[in-house]
Amino acid sequence: MAKLKAGIVGLGRLGYTHAQDLMFKIPEVDLVAACSVVPEELDRVKDWGVELFSDYSTMIKEAPIDAVFIISPSALHPEQIIEALNAGKHVFSEKPLGTTLEDCIKVEEECNKHPELKFQLGFMRRFDPSYEEAKAKVDSGKFGKPFMIKTTSNDPLETIEGFLKFAPQSGGPWLDMSVHDVDLAMWYFDEEVESVYAIGGGFLHPELEEFGCADNACALIKFKNGNIAQMHVGYSAPNGYQVETEIMMPEGNLRISAVPAKDRIEIYGREGVLVECDPSWPARFSEAFLREKQHFVNCVLNDETPSVGAADGTRTTKVALALTEAFESGEVVKL
Amino acid sequence: MAKLKAGIVGLGRLGYTHAQDLMFKIPEVDLVAACSVVPEELDRVKDWGVELFSDYSTMIKEAPIDAVFIISPSALHPEQIIEALNAGKHVFSEKPLGTTLEDCIKVEEECNKHPELKFQLGFMRRFDPSYEEAKAKVDSGKFGKPFMIKTTSNDPLETIEGFLKFAPQSGGPWLDMSVHDVDLAMWYFDEEVESVYAIGGGFLHPELEEFGCADNACALIKFKNGNIAQMHVGYSAPNGYQVETEIMMPEGNLRISAVPAKDRIEIYGREGVLVECDPSWPARFSEAFLREKQHFVNCVLNDETPSVGAADGTRTTKVALALTEAFESGEVVKL
Amino acid sequence: MAKLKAGIVGLGRLGYTHAQDLMFKIPEVDLVAACSVVPEELDRVKDWGVELFSDYSTMIKEAPIDAVFIISPSALHPEQIIEALNAGKHVFSEKPLGTTLEDCIKVEEECNKHPELKFQLGFMRRFDPSYEEAKAKVDSGKFGKPFMIKTTSNDPLETIEGFLKFAPQSGGPWLDMSVHDVDLAMWYFDEEVESVYAIGGGFLHPELEEFGCADNACALIKFKNGNIAQMHVGYSAPNGYQVETEIMMPEGNLRISAVPAKDRIEIYGREGVLVECDPSWPARFSEAFLREKQHFVNCVLNDETPSVGAADGTRTTKVALALTEAFESGEVVKL
Amino acid sequence: MAKLKAGIVGLGRLGYTHAQDLMFKIPEVDLVAACSVVPEELDRVKDWGVELFSDYSTMIKEAPIDAVFIISPSALHPEQIIEALNAGKHVFSEKPLGTTLEDCIKVEEECNKHPELKFQLGFMRRFDPSYEEAKAKVDSGKFGKPFMIKTTSNDPLETIEGFLKFAPQSGGPWLDMSVHDVDLAMWYFDEEVESVYAIGGGFLHPELEEFGCADNACALIKFKNGNIAQMHVGYSAPNGYQVETEIMMPEGNLRISAVPAKDRIEIYGREGVLVECDPSWPARFSEAFLREKQHFVNCVLNDETPSVGAADGTRTTKVALALTEAFESGEVVKL
Repeated sequence: MAKLKAGIVGLGRLGYTHAQDLMFKIPEVDLVAACSVVPEELDRVKDWGVELFSDYSTMIKEAPIDAVFIISPSALHPEQIIEALNAGKHVFSEKPLGTTLEDCIKVEEECNKHPELKFQLGFMRRFDPSYEEAKAKVDSGKFGKPFMIKTTSNDPLETIEGFLKFAPQSGGPWLDMSVHDVDLAMWYFDEEVESVYAIGGGFLHPELEEFGCADNACALIKFKNGNIAQMHVGYSAPNGYQVETEIMMPEGNLRISAVPAKDRIEIYGREGVLVECDPSWPARFSEAFLREKQHFVNCVLNDETPSVGAADGTRTTKVALALTEAFESGEVVKL
Repeated sequence: MAKLKAGIVGLGRLGYTHAQDLMFKIPEVDLVAACSVVPEELDRVKDWGVELFSDYSTMIKEAPIDAVFIISPSALHPEQIIEALNAGKHVFSEKPLGTTLEDCIKVEEECNKHPELKFQLGFMRRFDPSYEEAKAKVDSGKFGKPFMIKTTSNDPLETIEGFLKFAPQSGGPWLDMSVHDVDLAMWYFDEEVESVYAIGGGFLHPELEEFGCADNACALIKFKNGNIAQMHVGYSAPNGYQVETEIMMPEGNLRISAVPAKDRIEIYGREGVLVECDPSWPARFSEAFLREKQHFVNCVLNDETPSVGAADGTRTTKVALALTEAFESGEVVKL
Repeated sequence: MAKLKAGIVGLGRLGYTHAQDLMFKIPEVDLVAACSVVPEELDRVKDWGVELFSDYSTMIKEAPIDAVFIISPSALHPEQIIEALNAGKHVFSEKPLGTTLEDCIKVEEECNKHPELKFQLGFMRRFDPSYEEAKAKVDSGKFGKPFMIKTTSNDPLETIEGFLKFAPQSGGPWLDMSVHDVDLAMWYFDEEVESVYAIGGGFLHPELEEFGCADNACALIKFKNGNIAQMHVGYSAPNGYQVETEIMMPEGNLRISAVPAKDRIEIYGREGVLVECDPSWPARFSEAFLREKQHFVNCVLNDETPSVGAADGTRTTKVALALTEAFESGEVVKL
Repeated sequence: MAKLKAGIVGLGRLGYTHAQDLMFKIPEVDLVAACSVVPEELDRVKDWGVELFSDYSTMIKEAPIDAVFIISPSALHPEQIIEALNAGKHVFSEKPLGTTLEDCIKVEEECNKHPELKFQLGFMRRFDPSYEEAKAKVDSGKFGKPFMIKTTSNDPLETIEGFLKFAPQSGGPWLDMSVHDVDLAMWYFDEEVESVYAIGGGFLHPELEEFGCADNACALIKFKNGNIAQMHVGYSAPNGYQVETEIMMPEGNLRISAVPAKDRIEIYGREGVLVECDPSWPARFSEAFLREKQHFVNCVLNDETPSVGAADGTRTTKVALALTEAFESGEVVKL
């Protein structure tokens, strides 16, 4: 079996999960190198027989790798992607592509200069079996052309305390959270955005409004062909991790995960009939995280183009920035 | 508009509900007489302008009524039905037809002697919109011939204290409760029972076992054509009033009220997603109670035969008695 | 029993349903007069023993009525309401209060001049058991203060042909349809609107765009306290009559009728598990139509103020007009 | 990392799936040997770098393995298990333990003679996340002691043609299919069976009755402590692979997979709201198949006792044979 020799940078919570997938769950990958500036993070993988690096550039130069998986802090993505591409490595990078539009464009251009190298951005929702099946159903044409999408991305209420600390640096709900929904809308519609409008507030935590953030916000997005996306992003779902999507077509609407059941159990108890819900994004999307990497590995080994590229990073960032502007100005923003 | 002049006997909890339906909700009925041996019950209707009776025979003889609705204690049903028929009145009677098989047969024979008079037994579930729609779907033949039915009739746990007092006189779960399911099975199958088997226990209230009762019991019923009914009767549904039925056909199964939602609300709360349930049979079947009487009234006014007759009372009683015998003996009982 | 003597004007599809409710289903009402300019409509009630009128003013002057139910064409509501009030009649009127803001204000002022007379506007959704229960849950404070509402009002796809003919005169989706959702939002929030934004299109029927209409449209509404309403109105629900509402509060969200099941049956068939849906608004809201009138009657008989008044008509019209303006201009409209 | 050197025998449909899991998805396993008498089956794994055998005894003697996974035809299980145990290998065997009670007892005794060797039987449902979570909830005591279980194991209607060929050799529905449900009931109850009763028929395929088989059958099982299991086994679920279980406790019932959704999508289409279902047992239980082996491997590496042993095979076989006898005789069978 052909195998892809791979390195990984970033071994925090998400990075370690990615590393475990690469090490144990994707047979076509040989994880041979891992990099982190945090010694404790390297400790977690020290028995795996992979070469450990505390410096990214060193790993890129010295490790015998064909590809690198970048799960480092967002601000480092652009330079690390570019360095890897220039060293001839295939690159899988967690989102975002960059934290500014300029960075995104720069990275996208760099990717374009290396058509022989594969690049994939971590919009993992596309690899969730339900979202993927929805895409197949949409593309089948059986229900007609999609014209509207309704999305909810609502983090669990229980995690809001953690978010409050992170909020001032988060870039606001649009860059932090809605990019996934923007990407899904563009993917299902295959269309660009024309204008956006957004409102929101700190309903549970008014202090969020001080630095231009919100705990719940809504947007209306108009696409060039007239299509509509109606979005709600929040940090306060009482029931768990509520990511819900409805795709509307003339002959049928697909609703995904209206009740984000954590398993197949219904509890018939004193209060009524209860379905317990996914507590977090790792619980909800673990399979998607695995499958997106499997896709990237298959693309490299079979010389195919990953379905999510740098351009998807640039265009979703453009929309997220427009949403931020609309949210701050209270006006409709045209792209 | 032709109107049916009616009297009612029995104004307890269920009787009063029936009386209200007759008085206010069925335009083709003129309720002109009401009878109860309990003065307080008569008080509840004293402002309705109906003639009040404390003696049933007097009402039958003197009140200018075409029909009588019998909601009295079960033991009185046979004689009251027969007396009314002999006086030339149409009769609607709550179930059971009688508490012994002999009584049932006697009443059935009496009904047969008066083909000009309409008789209907209160198997109201058949008039619930969902059960009625299921019957239409079964009879459409679209799914093939039904071969199995699974039923659950589980009273709310909250009402078990009330049942414990009533249990010694209840006749056991089969005569008290499963007759409705037996009637449904026979209605959907249009077939007679061949043999029955039943087990159960006092799982929450072992004291029930002392007088041959159970708080939960199950039966397997084999019909003459080989069809199967699988039944569960109980007095301990934690979530509310759980009456659930599944009808199995080669091309489709119909499941009725798996989650007995009390309204259309889902609560997304701290525990998960919750659906609150019907708290009681009046909440679940109020519409069926109304519609069964509307059917009877229409049959009288249009000279048609009610869809539930005395024979349905006799044959369900036969099965319920066989279930009781099977339950007590631990053996299969053939009819 | 005290009884309310009532007349009705308008006996079309909805009017006839109202008339049946008044005649047969509300015991405290004596329907004594009915008016229509369409002889065939009067024919339908000619056996009810009510006095028939072809002229509204005549009925108001001559019929011995305490109250009038106005179910006539929308344009006639204002003058008919005012005429009845001036004749000393209590008034129940179907929505809208008026077709222009000026008319609404005029009617509201007239109502205020007659504090001794009861007036109720037909926002019947408030009387649907699920919406009413949701209101009780919201007002209980158990889940905290509501901050967001998401609404969908999507007419069945099968009825769109009928709508296409009516569309040019419909006033657009906002005046025609979203007033119910606007009223619900204001009722649950107890708050006024600050600004609105709306987009939409003729996705299935582009010809609708020619006269400023849409078959699907979305709005974002900001309330004075920062609260948000996210609305979708449409004429193309493939599955039936889809009216769905979610009320978000810090400790719990209430979702009403996500799956608008027409009964309690699930069909386990070749395609999967199917729930059939309400085909139309009469199927969905028949109980609400009855209960709103019962509320009005109780208010008159007990000298209480109906919970939906003329002011609710004026303020929802204001918002609907602002939505129309926003939809046409593509800009945010402040109230 | 400690690794378990393993061999596998049987590389048919299920065997190949097990082999893939061992090869690629369980990091603690080194699959070093594979055996099949079918050359084509060996071909499928010839590039994996494992040693191939066409003779089981040779593999057991020569391959450097600590453990063997037995996925061969049922009739071979007993002798292959015993041969491996005698050669000092840990054994994981697919169910059944044996096709006769005598064989089961012989294997169980052999296991008992080798307390130093781990043995696990493939009752994989216990390792399905939902069944496992249900066990945790039951054992938590939060809902009280379980007293009843209702089970449905209904194979997809689409697969019945395949079953018809296999049916004469299948041992009937009880040995073929209900053993999983019997095992679950005993696991949740921690109790032995006292008596059984069963009926059924060839409702879709009467020819099944000729060799004592049925396409749908039901059983009532009484446990020594009075508990009840109500079982339905079938080969004709129209909607897909319907494995459904309800565990009843005084304070709550747990219902598992009432709607066996294949993903998180609801289709709002012309017929209503549709949930597509799992098409087959591999789709439904792939995770359970993986997790049961992970459990076995952990037990071997950590010197712990697998939670499903040979005794579970013997006792479920006893019950399945009693069910078969009851089904054939039409009488209650006591164990």
